[in-house]
Amino acid sequence: AMEFEELGIREECGVFGCVAAGEWPTELEVAQVITLGLVALQHRGQESAGIVTSNGASPPVYYSHKGMGLVSNAFPPEALQKLEYGNLGIGHTRYSTTGISELQNCQPFVVETLHGKIAVAHNGELVNAQKLRKQVMRHGVGLSTSSDSELIMQLLALTPPMEELDTPDWVARIKNLMTETPTSYSLLVMHQDVIYAVRDPYGNRPLCLGRLVPSSRLQGAGGETGSAETEGWVVSSESCGFQSIGARYYREVLPGEIVQISKHGVKTLSVVPRPEGDPPAFCIFEYVYFARPDSIFEGQMVYSVRQRCGRQLAIEAPADADVVSTVPESATPAALGFAQQAGLPYVEVLCKNRYVGRTFIQPNTRLRQLGVAKKFGALTDNFAGKRVVLVDDSIVRGNTISPIIRLLREAGAKEVHIRVASPPIRFPCYMGINIPTKEELIANRPEFENIARYIGATSVVYLSVEGLVAAVQGGVASREEKDAVIGGKASRKGGHCTACLTGKYPVELEW
Amino acid sequence: AMEFEELGIREECGVFGCVAAGEWPTELEVAQVITLGLVALQHRGQESAGIVTSNGASPPVYYSHKGMGLVSNAFPPEALQKLEYGNLGIGHTRYSTTGISELQNCQPFVVETLHGKIAVAHNGELVNAQKLRKQVMRHGVGLSTSSDSELIMQLLALTPPMEELDTPDWVARIKNLMTETPTSYSLLVMHQDVIYAVRDPYGNRPLCLGRLVPSSRLQGAGGETGSAETEGWVVSSESCGFQSIGARYYREVLPGEIVQISKHGVKTLSVVPRPEGDPPAFCIFEYVYFARPDSIFEGQMVYSVRQRCGRQLAIEAPADADVVSTVPESATPAALGFAQQAGLPYVEVLCKNRYVGRTFIQPNTRLRQLGVAKKFGALTDNFAGKRVVLVDDSIVRGNTISPIIRLLREAGAKEVHIRVASPPIRFPCYMGINIPTKEELIANRPEFENIARYIGATSVVYLSVEGLVAAVQGGVASREEKDAVIGGKASRKGGHCTACLTGKYPVELEW
Amino acid sequence: AMEFEELGIREECGVFGCVAAGEWPTELEVAQVITLGLVALQHRGQESAGIVTSNGASPPVYYSHKGMGLVSNAFPPEALQKLEYGNLGIGHTRYSTTGISELQNCQPFVVETLHGKIAVAHNGELVNAQKLRKQVMRHGVGLSTSSDSELIMQLLALTPPMEELDTPDWVARIKNLMTETPTSYSLLVMHQDVIYAVRDPYGNRPLCLGRLVPSSRLQGAGGETGSAETEGWVVSSESCGFQSIGARYYREVLPGEIVQISKHGVKTLSVVPRPEGDPPAFCIFEYVYFARPDSIFEGQMVYSVRQRCGRQLAIEAPADADVVSTVPESATPAALGFAQQAGLPYVEVLCKNRYVGRTFIQPNTRLRQLGVAKKFGALTDNFAGKRVVLVDDSIVRGNTISPIIRLLREAGAKEVHIRVASPPIRFPCYMGINIPTKEELIANRPEFENIARYIGATSVVYLSVEGLVAAVQGGVASREEKDAVIGGKASRKGGHCTACLTGKYPVELEW
Amino acid sequence: AMEFEELGIREECGVFGCVAAGEWPTELEVAQVITLGLVALQHRGQESAGIVTSNGASPPVYYSHKGMGLVSNAFPPEALQKLEYGNLGIGHTRYSTTGISELQNCQPFVVETLHGKIAVAHNGELVNAQKLRKQVMRHGVGLSTSSDSELIMQLLALTPPMEELDTPDWVARIKNLMTETPTSYSLLVMHQDVIYAVRDPYGNRPLCLGRLVPSSRLQGAGGETGSAETEGWVVSSESCGFQSIGARYYREVLPGEIVQISKHGVKTLSVVPRPEGDPPAFCIFEYVYFARPDSIFEGQMVYSVRQRCGRQLAIEAPADADVVSTVPESATPAALGFAQQAGLPYVEVLCKNRYVGRTFIQPNTRLRQLGVAKKFGALTDNFAGKRVVLVDDSIVRGNTISPIIRLLREAGAKEVHIRVASPPIRFPCYMGINIPTKEELIANRPEFENIARYIGATSVVYLSVEGLVAAVQGGVASREEKDAVIGGKASRKGGHCTACLTGKYPVELEW
Repeated sequence: AMEFEELGIREECGVFGCVAAGEWPTELEVAQVITLGLVALQHRGQESAGIVTSNGASPPVYYSHKGMGLVSNAFPPEALQKLEYGNLGIGHTRYSTTGISELQNCQPFVVETLHGKIAVAHNGELVNAQKLRKQVMRHGVGLSTSSDSELIMQLLALTPPMEELDTPDWVARIKNLMTETPTSYSLLVMHQDVIYAVRDPYGNRPLCLGRLVPSSRLQGAGGETGSAETEGWVVSSESCGFQSIGARYYREVLPGEIVQISKHGVKTLSVVPRPEGDPPAFCIFEYVYFARPDSIFEGQMVYSVRQRCGRQLAIEAPADADVVSTVPESATPAALGFAQQAGLPYVEVLCKNRYVGRTFIQPNTRLRQLGVAKKFGALTDNFAGKRVVLVDDSIVRGNTISPIIRLLREAGAKEVHIRVASPPIRFPCYMGINIPTKEELIANRPEFENIARYIGATSVVYLSVEGLVAAVQGGVASREEKDAVIGGKASRKGGHCTACLTGKYPVELEW
Repeated sequence: AMEFEELGIREECGVFGCVAAGEWPTELEVAQVITLGLVALQHRGQESAGIVTSNGASPPVYYSHKGMGLVSNAFPPEALQKLEYGNLGIGHTRYSTTGISELQNCQPFVVETLHGKIAVAHNGELVNAQKLRKQVMRHGVGLSTSSDSELIMQLLALTPPMEELDTPDWVARIKNLMTETPTSYSLLVMHQDVIYAVRDPYGNRPLCLGRLVPSSRLQGAGGETGSAETEGWVVSSESCGFQSIGARYYREVLPGEIVQISKHGVKTLSVVPRPEGDPPAFCIFEYVYFARPDSIFEGQMVYSVRQRCGRQLAIEAPADADVVSTVPESATPAALGFAQQAGLPYVEVLCKNRYVGRTFIQPNTRLRQLGVAKKFGALTDNFAGKRVVLVDDSIVRGNTISPIIRLLREAGAKEVHIRVASPPIRFPCYMGINIPTKEELIANRPEFENIARYIGATSVVYLSVEGLVAAVQGGVASREEKDAVIGGKASRKGGHCTACLTGKYPVELEW
Repeated sequence: AMEFEELGIREECGVFGCVAAGEWPTELEVAQVITLGLVALQHRGQESAGIVTSNGASPPVYYSHKGMGLVSNAFPPEALQKLEYGNLGIGHTRYSTTGISELQNCQPFVVETLHGKIAVAHNGELVNAQKLRKQVMRHGVGLSTSSDSELIMQLLALTPPMEELDTPDWVARIKNLMTETPTSYSLLVMHQDVIYAVRDPYGNRPLCLGRLVPSSRLQGAGGETGSAETEGWVVSSESCGFQSIGARYYREVLPGEIVQISKHGVKTLSVVPRPEGDPPAFCIFEYVYFARPDSIFEGQMVYSVRQRCGRQLAIEAPADADVVSTVPESATPAALGFAQQAGLPYVEVLCKNRYVGRTFIQPNTRLRQLGVAKKFGALTDNFAGKRVVLVDDSIVRGNTISPIIRLLREAGAKEVHIRVASPPIRFPCYMGINIPTKEELIANRPEFENIARYIGATSVVYLSVEGLVAAVQGGVASREEKDAVIGGKASRKGGHCTACLTGKYPVELEW
Repeated sequence: AMEFEELGIREECGVFGCVAAGEWPTELEVAQVITLGLVALQHRGQESAGIVTSNGASPPVYYSHKGMGLVSNAFPPEALQKLEYGNLGIGHTRYSTTGISELQNCQPFVVETLHGKIAVAHNGELVNAQKLRKQVMRHGVGLSTSSDSELIMQLLALTPPMEELDTPDWVARIKNLMTETPTSYSLLVMHQDVIYAVRDPYGNRPLCLGRLVPSSRLQGAGGETGSAETEGWVVSSESCGFQSIGARYYREVLPGEIVQISKHGVKTLSVVPRPEGDPPAFCIFEYVYFARPDSIFEGQMVYSVRQRCGRQLAIEAPADADVVSTVPESATPAALGFAQQAGLPYVEVLCKNRYVGRTFIQPNTRLRQLGVAKKFGALTDNFAGKRVVLVDDSIVRGNTISPIIRLLREAGAKEVHIRVASPPIRFPCYMGINIPTKEELIANRPEFENIARYIGATSVVYLSVEGLVAAVQGGVASREEKDAVIGGKASRKGGHCTACLTGKYPVELEW
């Protein structure tokens, strides 16, 4: 994952919402739950964080705070205090470019409309944003940011007919929005005492629901909790934070579904269909890299998928070696899967310096040559004189793995076989992932022909697209099966978006 | 002015713009000029600052930076670098409540419309903002802040007909805006290679133009500079900064005037009239307190007006005393005027500790009793045993002058006559000035009857409204003349808004 | 004073101490009193501040906090809380070069010795520091800073005989220290429940005592307070802060005096004499520039001395002019004195922008030429077409007054006569004042011959040394008297150090 | 290691030095090398960092910078620039209590003595510090901090005879110091162009030497580098950073050894012996927890020792279980060793949230009950329905492992067997390790009897002291061997300090 990190290949956002279910005002501290929920989604966005809570009254009073940096920086004690009277609320954590002026792009956005204030938090990227912007501006609306979230807000505010209605029909507006733009968005819209949780028809970005178990039950033996004992509901990009707030995983929001969350429970209001024949298109890179390994998508744990990727890789590309190891930490499940399938011992060969961070050294020639090695130390005893299979989760540009291979060789590795637990990235993403330009991607460059020599490895093999799909879809393919998949037709469990690997986008792109 | 400061009675904003007049790109560093211009307007807003520059191309590229705090904090070197390629630009400095999330309210606002991006900076407060907000929202626009500036932007973006026009007619839109809202605003709108400088029909907020003299002339003997030698144009809330950037005062923007500023010079595009019979309504408190003393309004220096207020006060309310002094620093011109008129020696009696700032002492009883005295030391030798006239520019609530009087008495003053160089504030302002609630204003409270006893002074007299108007309008009234004014007819030079003193607002207020 | 500020000519430090006089622990919050005391001494040091309090028990518990920047920055609420249990304490405010590592040089210093911990705060500079450092190091002591304060501490710790004594005789040690080094120091030494206040035999740096009046008396009519009602004692570099903490000026610590301050009162323990025939040498620049105008030295208010300097200057160097004015703010008393003596009207001609601060503009040629003018605006109406006498308190290098003169001339001044209310600085100071190198001082350069032309003034005259001495010593000299002084013998009231003006140092300098 | 972290059980410091070996001034950027060296020692101290470099001239010029926080915070670019002219230098990274005033305790300390300036960096704690402080103070020296490093400096400065010597004999002084205090210290003393690297006679703290290989060789195939090609020498608490700076491990500094490092190479000046019969006493907790796993002590890699601890634990305390796992990350080598020895599969059961950090939540009852679980997510698929052996490296107080066990049980673990890869801590350390009070240590409390029930585990077993010693000394003991060790004689390779486990201190403690 080092290359992902260095290249800024990353998810754009995480969203989290909470509604207290008891009599309002409850004792449940909604802002605290959302803060911890955002901390658990921190890997999805580390540049800013925001929370808006509501007292749920009519008209509601909104409390809002946004800040730059990690959740712990963005929410100092006095900020949490501001938010403490909420009965429901939504939060957001986000990547963006640096600069304090970017605070204006932080979500959730709050906007006043003719029918009251709404707050919006959004993960994803609208494929037809340019067209929609024109449309909105043609109506005489000015747009003050380049963010999709402002655009979504103005689209929701604009939806005609405005004047005829006595009461706003927010669901009709959300459905109208979903008709205008097919993907990609997982969306939370808070209005008065309700949160609408929305996932685009292709289900490109994840979103799931959880139930807050009363603390009296948390202490006990666990076990089943009747719905009478629900203290509240949460909605989150990923389920990984649920344990840390005493919530139980409930279910995913389905592609195209609009779920209403209120103190009375969760209710499906509508499921907007895809065009006939179009499969769903959940981003396969959520499995490969973005999601936390303990999250659950489509009924399976991300960790297990990654482990199966490693096993699949061992089937597709075995190596005549003595030990299997990992580039810590994200490649470890794949490395363990590889070792297991290959019947080789798993050992650690690299020790990571947790504190490297950003030192402000303008390196002279000497130090520049040492390169990335300063992040790792070699655990020499575990591999000196041996043939090593080193599993990484990706090689995107190739310049962070080279110094690691050199480090291992200098410390005595006889051979270094690189096995990459995902296929090479070759195409841009227009649905919310920041990917380098085509020219920067190693798979599109001439060096790719001789990549092993280029990076100094004994051999290099990537996982096949079919192998990845097989691993995601629950099984590990034998070589024969894999050939079948290659020849073969669509996914078994439901489609996944593999556009960055294959160039096949889930919808036609319009500009 | 201490009470003004402590009560937060203050101007809301300052605006500044600059257009280079040579061949583009010029050598004139527009962002530097605007930064210095904002520094000179710092007294009009110390909580945030922002600048947007444009390369003036078609379509233009905009550079923008905003930051919290004083201009010097908000514009670190790297921020100035971002802005350095501009040929024209506008800036803004502003008061607001604290909190980082307020950065989103910082001006100038930039908004993308169907016909390109515009940037807007605004000083003032729309008297009919609530009505206009409803109107905009009824059209289906969401408003994300409570600021008038966003409202102005959306009104400009919205003005129909949007679709029919091939090219935008920004002047028509600005005129339309001015029809919708009579006051109060001084406005800069940047579009492409032009800045539109706009002052509301009542001229409630100041705005003036200046010409940048080539630096070769600055070094020389000064003298006249032909227009051929103009290096650029500036527009500013006040003229006080012109000398610091090498500019020469040119003229005021007139009430209702739309001035176009481009590299070709300044041009009046339109003058929107007031309703028949309505006089202009320039805020009289700009003279009393807000403006810097070296600024010029209506052809006269603010310092001179304040000095005349002091002279007028000496005529209206003479005191049998030995010396005249000031509460430093803003009351000094009035004190000198008083001394001059009264034929009494002017001395300093108070020494201000420039460094007091905000110490985080939670004072116990003992220290709380010492109160504001920690900001001043007594210059005992200058007044011990004497009868002192102490001129202040205002007494709003009465609790900052008391410790000063006690300080002087303890140090040996025989009598302390307080003379206030402005009339008592009694009414709220709806045109951009932050004023305490009516109940907090001493003039609306029973203590006002015996104010001298209440604050511990020998005597207390405020300047009359008529006296203030006379001083502003160029002369000092004798007692007889003053009576004439009181009985009397309108201002000579043109009307001024005295609403906070008299309750007479320049337009009918609608909610 | 602008040149003083820009050249960094400044006092090195201020010291402040407080002892509660009631039963311990008292209700008097000693740390708060010291904090306010340091705020009042802020002009003597703005780079760091420190306070050490003691519970006065045996052995004592010390609480200490130091921080960078102004007192308000250095003492956040949590820092004041740390200190709150003290019954006595000392504080210090200081200039130094920038850099966080300089925190280690912040005073007060606390040191553990064989006979307990002492805390030391010091204003001044030891003339024979180098010799003393060698002496200490020869005894086997390492010195970790270059500060005199560490040296003083080690000298106090070292004083033999160490082992023979059962109890430490700190007074003997302080006397021994005073024998070793003649000047310059005003020193506070806290040990157990006592503060020793020490002034060097030449009295080069100021130090004075005050009495804390019970708050019950502060509210009342003032008047006399018997000693039975003393709530505590304070000791301070200057008396200017006494009013702000409810203290009354008591007296100066005399040159060479060691005063013991405890809860039982103040007591002179010893007065160390100067060598026979040596006059005292109080720094004359405390009057000219360093001290706050409301401070009292030698029985007279600093403000009055400065005013007499202005009168003296009008006698020595009258000008044929229309108005007299000041470079705000420190030259104002001298300007008023000059106007009074000369019988000319005093007006303001410059308006200072309080917010200029440090903007990070790398000025291009154009803006650099505008120079210092950005700090001031011209109050044109007050002097256009007139001949102006502009009184400044100093011209050290000559490059800050030039742009001011140009500003006035461009705004219409017919003539600009510069009168400087102090003599030219020509020599370095070795007793605690930071002065530019000899070559940088305008008085030592060839331009000085034609200084008026050099800075663009109509005429330039400095106050004579004799005139300054006369003004300090209580009178204003007529021309005849002045000649007498010139020819003449020592000061009437007692000697002052004029070394930076005359090169005559109070003691022989050894290196 | 979570309990170590939460309880603040930690190493006090790391030291690092570098001498360039070429012609001075060299191209080697010594400050950069030291900075990277300190980054690699960051785990030994994260509260402050300091570097002092020297140009090595006579007399030398020293450059110094210290800062709070991680090396990356403490050394911004402008700080590194200050240091850039050095040919040699030493650095230090440190733990301490919070508070800016602690900057004065940051190392390295620089002190001026009669014979020039020395800089000192120190890791360890002098067992007889109190006695030495008295001794120094009796000589008349004041001590301004409570740190051993200041004490060491003054002892070095003091060593008699001071005056007789023309030239300082620093080695004699260091030897004298070593006679005065037996342990514990690893010390770097820089004087002029030399660094003295000193390890106490018991070798309690680590210290090792490395050689900087020319960058030309780094690029090549590696291989041997003759001494002619040495670019410089480094000395460090641990070897883990050597690869990141292009250095090769050379050897350890021996217990009692004084090594002189200069541009001419490294030279043993003296080896101060221990008292007859005393074995060395290298801190065994360096192996257990403090050191980075890729460091080498006594010829073996720390990682391998930890792995052997796991194997030994599997021999001593096998468990009837299905899978073996780790509390990430520090217990992983032991867990892998356990799994290997026990023949059980190694799986991951916990996923760590890297971003938890410090959120400012004042948790209500509900959230407090969730406890530490917010740091971990359960990888359910890997252990649901299974019997888990969970290997941790320590249980000190027992309250961080409990929520983890509950987390695993709630997620479906059938049994949770805790195996602790180190013996229980029972005694305080006086040699540089911060350990909780005896009462806080679980092993000294009644709950220890039923620790499994107390923390909710199926079973709990700690590694035996003998087993730890065996693992450290190179082998893994069978049960029979272990019994022999228990009955048994001393260590094979050399003694280790096990005082915190056994109460047997290497030297008699005097107070």
